[in-house]
Amino acid sequence: MTQPSPGHSITLRVSIPAGPASATDLVAAVAGTGAALTAFDVVEAAQNELLVDVTCDTLGAEHAAEVASALTALEGVTVKKSSDRTFLVHLGGKLESTPKAPIRTRDDLSRAYTPGVARVCRAIAEDPADARRLTIKRNTVAVVTDGSAVLGLGDIGPEASMPVMEGKAVLFKEFAGVDAWPVALDARDTEEIISICKALAPAYGGINLEDISAPRCFEIEARLREELDIPVFHDDQHGTAIVTLAALTNALTVVAKQIQDVRIVVSGAGAAGHAVVQLLQAAGARHIVVCGRHGVLDPEADHADPHRAWLATHTNPDGVTGTLKEAVVGADVFIGVSAPNLLDGDDIADMADDAVVFAMSNPDPEVDPGVAGRTAAVVATGRSDFPNQINNVLAFPGFFRGLLDAEACDITDDMLVAAAEAIAGCISAEALNPHHIIPSVFEQGVSEHVAAAVAEAARRDAVHRRGAAAESADPVPALAEGVIA
Amino acid sequence: MTQPSPGHSITLRVSIPAGPASATDLVAAVAGTGAALTAFDVVEAAQNELLVDVTCDTLGAEHAAEVASALTALEGVTVKKSSDRTFLVHLGGKLESTPKAPIRTRDDLSRAYTPGVARVCRAIAEDPADARRLTIKRNTVAVVTDGSAVLGLGDIGPEASMPVMEGKAVLFKEFAGVDAWPVALDARDTEEIISICKALAPAYGGINLEDISAPRCFEIEARLREELDIPVFHDDQHGTAIVTLAALTNALTVVAKQIQDVRIVVSGAGAAGHAVVQLLQAAGARHIVVCGRHGVLDPEADHADPHRAWLATHTNPDGVTGTLKEAVVGADVFIGVSAPNLLDGDDIADMADDAVVFAMSNPDPEVDPGVAGRTAAVVATGRSDFPNQINNVLAFPGFFRGLLDAEACDITDDMLVAAAEAIAGCISAEALNPHHIIPSVFEQGVSEHVAAAVAEAARRDAVHRRGAAAESADPVPALAEGVIA
Repeated sequence: MTQPSPGHSITLRVSIPAGPASATDLVAAVAGTGAALTAFDVVEAAQNELLVDVTCDTLGAEHAAEVASALTALEGVTVKKSSDRTFLVHLGGKLESTPKAPIRTRDDLSRAYTPGVARVCRAIAEDPADARRLTIKRNTVAVVTDGSAVLGLGDIGPEASMPVMEGKAVLFKEFAGVDAWPVALDARDTEEIISICKALAPAYGGINLEDISAPRCFEIEARLREELDIPVFHDDQHGTAIVTLAALTNALTVVAKQIQDVRIVVSGAGAAGHAVVQLLQAAGARHIVVCGRHGVLDPEADHADPHRAWLATHTNPDGVTGTLKEAVVGADVFIGVSAPNLLDGDDIADMADDAVVFAMSNPDPEVDPGVAGRTAAVVATGRSDFPNQINNVLAFPGFFRGLLDAEACDITDDMLVAAAEAIAGCISAEALNPHHIIPSVFEQGVSEHVAAAVAEAARRDAVHRRGAAAESADPVPALAEGVIA
Repeated sequence: MTQPSPGHSITLRVSIPAGPASATDLVAAVAGTGAALTAFDVVEAAQNELLVDVTCDTLGAEHAAEVASALTALEGVTVKKSSDRTFLVHLGGKLESTPKAPIRTRDDLSRAYTPGVARVCRAIAEDPADARRLTIKRNTVAVVTDGSAVLGLGDIGPEASMPVMEGKAVLFKEFAGVDAWPVALDARDTEEIISICKALAPAYGGINLEDISAPRCFEIEARLREELDIPVFHDDQHGTAIVTLAALTNALTVVAKQIQDVRIVVSGAGAAGHAVVQLLQAAGARHIVVCGRHGVLDPEADHADPHRAWLATHTNPDGVTGTLKEAVVGADVFIGVSAPNLLDGDDIADMADDAVVFAMSNPDPEVDPGVAGRTAAVVATGRSDFPNQINNVLAFPGFFRGLLDAEACDITDDMLVAAAEAIAGCISAEALNPHHIIPSVFEQGVSEHVAAAVAEAARRDAVHRRGAAAESADPVPALAEGVIA
């Protein structure tokens, strides 16, 4: 079911003999490999020779090499250069630090740097709360990782995690105007990561933890929430939980079931599973069964991991036992945050009528969504090439926008639920259908809705510092009674 | 000698009676306070009333309040609002993180984030050296402080230091295209700061230490240089030393003396003084006398600080003793990196003929430059309102540009000297005169010259990784044999 992807797009610069036949052969050769031709650009045309750039989506590096070979095999054709568009996007990194105002004159320098800056420093020293007005803290989030659980790649370390962290920072800015900066730490000790985050906190209005392996991520998040006065969010947990609840809310509307009634099987007892279960319960779910690698978590077992023990003892009121395949029999909802290909079509067919299946393991889901769709009423995955993509990009940019706007100091369950409701609410009743339970990541206005809901919930729960959602101009300290902008 | 400064510029929104006389009165009232009117903008004109914005440079907050009072005292005049342009520049911070390429389509997302990004991560995991090609490490520097010795303000802490660190990051970008990010640490323990810097290093191509108090800054810099494979620069030391040597090189040309012959008195045995002495010696100076608060450092004394002990025993071959005032008698060069108003005109008159005086204490120099100029041949300060400003902005942006271009892993004395020579060389023989021994910070091309000299010296000293100074396109790993940009 894998398709050529723009994430594996290559451009080959190829010399071909002039004449229509050769170009046709080229296009046919690309098609013959199964790659998807997306552009054919003539770079230079001579009497007997054409230089062309052939761009196509492939399945990956091996497939790309195949395409190059197929072209080389053609009579008179030479592949001069090949380049990989994904790597090109990454050359020199994806992020830069940009001054908000230029330094063109001595006066600019006197205000942005010495001697003027000294007064601003003094104002903050006198009232540290001014840091939120007069420094980047007002709009800036740290994206913190140790590189221990990056995407599906596992423990690849801080250097190799940077493209993901930079990408995350790009998404923060593009989707919600939040300045974010990657902090990829060469540190593994839980206490060390906690103390580094605490030391870095003065410059930031929030911390987004990212791709830190369980169970350390639990301890790090819990301690930072307790010890810092800025909000701390673990996207792999809370981001996933928010979009899952959003999708489930709409899916249950489609199948006309109530969250408190449905029997939900969650596959995956890691960080994401833990957060999903907690949030579903906060939203009213009562019948949740959690499966780990060896089936339904046993409340009687001696779990080394306290978070797994919590899941085992705080779910499954009906005492379901057995394997995952056994647990899904008769279930209304399956939520997979675990591993590829754990279920097949028969398993899904054994679920209750109008079953809801969220197979979110990435890139390969717990069950083939095409197969699941034969009997399930609603199917969603984490992939962009199927309907109903459950993607954290729907949640984290707007969520932090709301946190920063409210100058929130903490995150409550109510704020997570509010974010989920905001995302779910982006699909109108008329537009809601089994293939459209969640907005596209490119749908306009999602992050604004999430931000407003989160800021509002922060005020409700009194974890905010700022009364108005977003003041465009702050009072300036010292002399000023107002600002002339 | 203090002048109204744009660093203390205010804008007052004032309602005045219509009619030419009242506007004239207003201008006269501003002038009467000693403030410098820089703009007079009519915002609204009604029959009997004008609303105007009066912008003027002042001496500081108190003086600004005086200006407002002087206007209020005028018949029929009301000050409606006042704002401070320096604070306005700082609202929301001076820096943002900006994506280098937008995410407009699903294909953009697939390349900059999942699934495409996974291949880039994998490439770096396989060859960590690729981090310099495929992440922001290639062009990004951390500006690290603990806020313990900020400007002349002292220990104001990390939050309050941020405006300076952000300003520094702005200068890095504006003057040399270097991406820099402020890292203001809530940490004081030397070992903790060292371990945090080490943990942060994977994302950065260099570390600029800033405003960390002595003697901790020595230990932090020395250890990081030893333990990291990216260059570590302490601007308060090395930046100051570079621009001092640059200025001295040209000043000695003006007075036709040789660095190895002149007797140099350095006032200040802290971080800056230490670095200045080391670099002057590396450049050939032999007769340096260092004075601390209690006069010439005594080589026989039991100095608690090993860096002060080093200075005491590695300078002053001629055995000079006594106070600073005694030490400068007959000296060719005075270099002050210490405190205001330590010397007077008589002291400068007691120096050798054609004396060179660098009074760099900021904002108030060791000796009034106007007074010093009566007998000294060349006078320089750290201030922008006198000729010959010795400003680190001439050094650090270009220095790091060179480090990044060469992918340098360390900094040698040779590189510091090369940077100083490059700055000195920006003044042509024809342009060189007692009031022009060092380029203005806004002179075009300074940072480019410094960068080229530093990169060249890095290659000479074999602390570089990259052969060419600046390749515009890197080979792309995996498939690629070349890049089609």
